[in-house]
Amino acid sequence: MPTNPTRPPLIIDVHGHYTTAPPALGAWRDLQMAALKDPSIVADPKALKISDDEIRETIELNQLAKMRERGSDLTLFSPRASFMAHHVGDLRTSSDWAAICNELCARVSQLYPQHFVPVAMLPQSPGVDPATCIPELERCVRDYGCVGINLNPDPSGGHWNSPPLTDRHWYPIYEKMVEHELPAMIHVSTSCNACFHTTGAHYINADTTAFMQLLQGDLFADFPTLKFLIPHGGGAAPYHWGRYRGLAQELKKPLLQQHLLGNVFFDTCVYHQPGIDLLTKVIPGGQHPVCQRDDRRRARHRPRNRPPLRRHQALRGGHAQPHRGAALQGL
Amino acid sequence: MPTNPTRPPLIIDVHGHYTTAPPALGAWRDLQMAALKDPSIVADPKALKISDDEIRETIELNQLAKMRERGSDLTLFSPRASFMAHHVGDLRTSSDWAAICNELCARVSQLYPQHFVPVAMLPQSPGVDPATCIPELERCVRDYGCVGINLNPDPSGGHWNSPPLTDRHWYPIYEKMVEHELPAMIHVSTSCNACFHTTGAHYINADTTAFMQLLQGDLFADFPTLKFLIPHGGGAAPYHWGRYRGLAQELKKPLLQQHLLGNVFFDTCVYHQPGIDLLTKVIPGGQHPVCQRDDRRRARHRPRNRPPLRRHQALRGGHAQPHRGAALQGL
Repeated sequence: MPTNPTRPPLIIDVHGHYTTAPPALGAWRDLQMAALKDPSIVADPKALKISDDEIRETIELNQLAKMRERGSDLTLFSPRASFMAHHVGDLRTSSDWAAICNELCARVSQLYPQHFVPVAMLPQSPGVDPATCIPELERCVRDYGCVGINLNPDPSGGHWNSPPLTDRHWYPIYEKMVEHELPAMIHVSTSCNACFHTTGAHYINADTTAFMQLLQGDLFADFPTLKFLIPHGGGAAPYHWGRYRGLAQELKKPLLQQHLLGNVFFDTCVYHQPGIDLLTKVIPGGQHPVCQRDDRRRARHRPRNRPPLRRHQALRGGHAQPHRGAALQGL
Repeated sequence: MPTNPTRPPLIIDVHGHYTTAPPALGAWRDLQMAALKDPSIVADPKALKISDDEIRETIELNQLAKMRERGSDLTLFSPRASFMAHHVGDLRTSSDWAAICNELCARVSQLYPQHFVPVAMLPQSPGVDPATCIPELERCVRDYGCVGINLNPDPSGGHWNSPPLTDRHWYPIYEKMVEHELPAMIHVSTSCNACFHTTGAHYINADTTAFMQLLQGDLFADFPTLKFLIPHGGGAAPYHWGRYRGLAQELKKPLLQQHLLGNVFFDTCVYHQPGIDLLTKVIPGGQHPVCQRDDRRRARHRPRNRPPLRRHQALRGGHAQPHRGAALQGL
């Protein structure tokens, strides 16, 4: 689409979660967890009933209201990150749960095709080959038009016993990402290690850890088109950019911009203006970040910079109508 | 000492490590590690010989040269953090190693009493009661005039299987810290978890983790005078200050300044100017930070702000001569 200078850019939030899903979802998950302990309990995914009106209510009063208030146009929308809890149960547990959560986000995008595009969670499970996630990934692309995935580098929930993201362990997922041109947001879930508070330590540590794993390795030599979004402003990476520049030098890697920044992107989910200012100052090529000025409370919905999508990817599902010109061109 | 406004403040580097120790130290450690696998090898601490001249050479060409070049006056000096490697061997291993490393830093301070004040590492060992560290702690205070300790919140080296710092597990150490008015720098050591690069992930994650543990708990209700230094600019904490402010609110804690900042201090070890600028902007009460402008290479010696020492503590060993006036008054 040609650039139209008279129209403002489309603003896309690349890190939206369905944090406000109807209570029936959490109740079903409780049932599923109870069934793990008591075989007389059956958690049938078909038993979960959520109406379109219930979805509309949770979206219109929350995410959509905030989008309108703040002037963002489109949200890439995935299941609530802390609810993924891949450490619970086994592959069957995660598969049922991922299918339910992904369907719910797809329904949001079907109800509000102008505003939400779905991103899939994967049915990861500790110690299980990531290749087992591929059927759900394929289904989400094919049936729901998902434009990205959330990839958990630590399905154990804080024990960090999976190999680093640069290990061939993860390659089956990367091959599918490349095939479908899907970026991945690297996002852990609930911590079950008492040392790590989920959102206050585990999330931020995982972002920092992932960035350093990618810095240490040469993953993008094997997958030149692979794209990762590191959320929460890249964890500690931009704040410690001098450290990472020094480490790249010590490890005989190219400059960070060449080594990583064609494949690794950060959102602006930093929750206060000085942090966002640092991010946009330090990271080269950050474009038109929309800053969140209300830093006294964490918002559910946050505008970001540099979403790791190419235009056709964001439009894959046919939901987004970039009516404001060359919106996605520069992203 | 009364303030003398005509004299510039004393500049104290609160986070110095003996990273340049003579090679004989590393060779002895190699021997000790070999002895763990081969009982025919004996690693006798008395066998390690390092002359005063060897120490002088490593210090004068490195730390002291940088201090003079950059204009800092005094360094709180502890054994190299990545060498602590508490995960190696058992309590005996760590005890011998800590004794050697602490003695070496004490000798540096004896050779250069105007410039170095010793800080002790502890003989921590995974799964071992921290109370076992007390004899070495007492010895370092009594014999060497140590003014602080380095406390490793994860002696396992990246498996994070010790309780959080707010747990009573750590109280024996805190009781001694209070008794001797010793601050602790919270500092992990080498990572032996492939997910975490030592300086690029484990260090920064530990800082972030420690901050959040302290935020979640109420440790300073039990130990009102306990003082912690969180190194590396506080990990990710200042960059995500809005997040932590929100979490304190969510957890019904007082404002961060009241809740933590009377007991928790950050250094300015951030290795690039924008990060230091963010830190000094965000953290209230930062005083006279000395910024490190050479951000292309990591320096061995870095000036900091707000060392967690009171004047008499920094002077405890009788080494430091604050000849420039009320230097330590405001720190």
